[in-house]
Amino acid sequence: MMRQDEAVNVRRRGTNLPKMGDFNQSVILEAIRRSGDGLSRTELVTATGLSAQTVTNITRRLLDEALISEAGRTISGPGKPRTILQLNATSRLSIGVHLDPSVMTFVLLDLAGSIISHRTAKTPANDPRRIIEAMTQSIDSLVADADVSRASIAGVGVATPGPLDAAHGSVIDPPKLHSWHRVPLRDALAEATGFAVTLEKDTTAAAVGELWRGDAPPAGSFLLVYLGTGIGTALVLDGDVVRGSSRNVGEVGHIIVDPAGPMCGCGKRGCVEVVCTPQAIVESAEAAGVFADDRVGSDAESVDERFTELCVRAAGGDTLATEVLERSARHLSVLISGLANMLDVDRIVVGGPFWSRLEQVYLRRLPGLLEAQSATRVVRDLPLSGTVVGDDVAAVGAGCVVLDEVLSPRASALFLDS
Amino acid sequence: MMRQDEAVNVRRRGTNLPKMGDFNQSVILEAIRRSGDGLSRTELVTATGLSAQTVTNITRRLLDEALISEAGRTISGPGKPRTILQLNATSRLSIGVHLDPSVMTFVLLDLAGSIISHRTAKTPANDPRRIIEAMTQSIDSLVADADVSRASIAGVGVATPGPLDAAHGSVIDPPKLHSWHRVPLRDALAEATGFAVTLEKDTTAAAVGELWRGDAPPAGSFLLVYLGTGIGTALVLDGDVVRGSSRNVGEVGHIIVDPAGPMCGCGKRGCVEVVCTPQAIVESAEAAGVFADDRVGSDAESVDERFTELCVRAAGGDTLATEVLERSARHLSVLISGLANMLDVDRIVVGGPFWSRLEQVYLRRLPGLLEAQSATRVVRDLPLSGTVVGDDVAAVGAGCVVLDEVLSPRASALFLDS
Repeated sequence: MMRQDEAVNVRRRGTNLPKMGDFNQSVILEAIRRSGDGLSRTELVTATGLSAQTVTNITRRLLDEALISEAGRTISGPGKPRTILQLNATSRLSIGVHLDPSVMTFVLLDLAGSIISHRTAKTPANDPRRIIEAMTQSIDSLVADADVSRASIAGVGVATPGPLDAAHGSVIDPPKLHSWHRVPLRDALAEATGFAVTLEKDTTAAAVGELWRGDAPPAGSFLLVYLGTGIGTALVLDGDVVRGSSRNVGEVGHIIVDPAGPMCGCGKRGCVEVVCTPQAIVESAEAAGVFADDRVGSDAESVDERFTELCVRAAGGDTLATEVLERSARHLSVLISGLANMLDVDRIVVGGPFWSRLEQVYLRRLPGLLEAQSATRVVRDLPLSGTVVGDDVAAVGAGCVVLDEVLSPRASALFLDS
Repeated sequence: MMRQDEAVNVRRRGTNLPKMGDFNQSVILEAIRRSGDGLSRTELVTATGLSAQTVTNITRRLLDEALISEAGRTISGPGKPRTILQLNATSRLSIGVHLDPSVMTFVLLDLAGSIISHRTAKTPANDPRRIIEAMTQSIDSLVADADVSRASIAGVGVATPGPLDAAHGSVIDPPKLHSWHRVPLRDALAEATGFAVTLEKDTTAAAVGELWRGDAPPAGSFLLVYLGTGIGTALVLDGDVVRGSSRNVGEVGHIIVDPAGPMCGCGKRGCVEVVCTPQAIVESAEAAGVFADDRVGSDAESVDERFTELCVRAAGGDTLATEVLERSARHLSVLISGLANMLDVDRIVVGGPFWSRLEQVYLRRLPGLLEAQSATRVVRDLPLSGTVVGDDVAAVGAGCVVLDEVLSPRASALFLDS
């Protein structure tokens, strides 16, 4: 009889006291971290719903592990002064790396998600060995310059364009850098640096950074639209990042946004990849005669320069340039509204390296376009905002991925292992 | 100082012993329900990871509440025979209703999700009062015919086309039945029947039914594609149905799938709504000259008949009819692959009232089309299958929504209330 096996196959596992204790510890640490100035034990009871005794026991453990410290007393209302517990922000650090086709960004973060130090380096093109070497050098310099102990660094998070091969820790088909897919990026970097390395899609890393660094508590849901060399998205539901079956959530390059657009290599017309990317927008501007000079190269740096020129012209009142950007906003709105209607998220967040250049036009145009295309506009709004983290959101997010793995409360951690 | 308020604003609440006990009770009940033949206490320990003492305590409580019963003993291996605990399937019942533009389907379900009785009625068109009256009559007959006590019925779930106004318990803009949006469907039906009523999108209800009735444990993620009068989807992640900010997840009618397709009322060309729906497919078949006779009406019944004729012709080897259906499979694959690449789900499930007619062609064509368009085909497969529940998946699902609310373990139920 197979009944025993079937029983083992049941998904939902129960929970018990030790699992509950670990979870509550993460909840208290997160509450203290997000408070900024710290919280008293009484405030922690209110914040978490836990009993005073539980809060006392857990904060004692966090003090012993030096993750928090006592930081003076505060008087609020009658009764004796309360001891404030603050995050010991330098007790754990992490390194975030963003590997972009043209530039690599490195950040050293403390436990609060604040940047301790920052550097960039040009991405060596098409030579896997040199990429690993250059990354290792930059990471070593980052740590040396900040004068912190290597033992305090929980690990390195690397954000790369997707899709990823999570099992092998490599990038499947990176734009512009076709030799990358042969690089066992995660393991090679771990070996070269001596740190634990986590690979994450740049879009997903950006969403983790947005959650970790945002002032608001990580409630609710949002779609993050990442404007990089390619256009990607990430998804947050109930305050948790959705990673998907192969850690590749957010591949939207072949969603159709412009039925009259150019043919895509996939055989369809008007995909995001050939309509919404910076390169596609630059080509559309060239075709519209925005630039006086001849067509330049399609390498990452040329596109970047040309894109900046386009945005500067639009900001300066150039009608043609403005029309090109407004048309690109309309195309992007087709992507965003399609996904927002599918996913019924609370809000939209836009970020990535090209966001700050597009912000002015897109913040003016997108909200109205999304409202008009919303399937639920009768019952709800769909707010849109720029990322709170800024242009380095993927690098900062990659560092937050490491901190998040170590420290954030997760409902899934409550279930007994099978 | 605002620190107290900020603290209250922290999302993650802790958990405690009573919450844990309730959760573990749901876990055990679900394990017994899914086992079919029942489980011994020892098997429950293996299935849930809980201690023998906890399992003994909780099963005693479930026996007291008559949700389970002891059903003989079994001998497996050495040691004394084990008492088998089985679901008391008739201890709690629910009613599921599917409100479709042409037909209403009613099912009475037991706690195992099995259909005790079933009936259908023609949907009274465009008269809100008559819809409520007809539904109430059918529900009363369903209960009377099955000879069950009204007290054992946990409630009525109603599946309707979306989008919904969840706050008011009504349908926003139902296809073909334009007066519905003025009907406070949930409250009016609750008053008329005396039962608690839950409103759910037909697509979401179908996903709940798929989870509740499926033999497999509700692990992993799937996209459910619902082929009804309209095309909708539902999303399951980590075994839980995703409902969204306004309970409207799955609105995909205006995602572009055919850049050369007809203009849509939304101003875009080739949306799902004007390409993939049964009505659009019938119109495409008419344009292709599949039918000898003249164009018929666009009411739900005419479309349904015509659609059946098209599928029968294709099954009979008619080349034109087959081409129309194969082209519709290609268009649907653009929708599905766009969403699957975005959401990186484990698998695709297709169902709804038109599925059984399309199954033969779609199961032959869709897997290859999806494989070719997968962003992650290098690292993973994307299996596609028909619903396990069948054509009545929305009605059965609506009944399961009620059972699910009462009985399923939910991680969110672990957190302390704020």
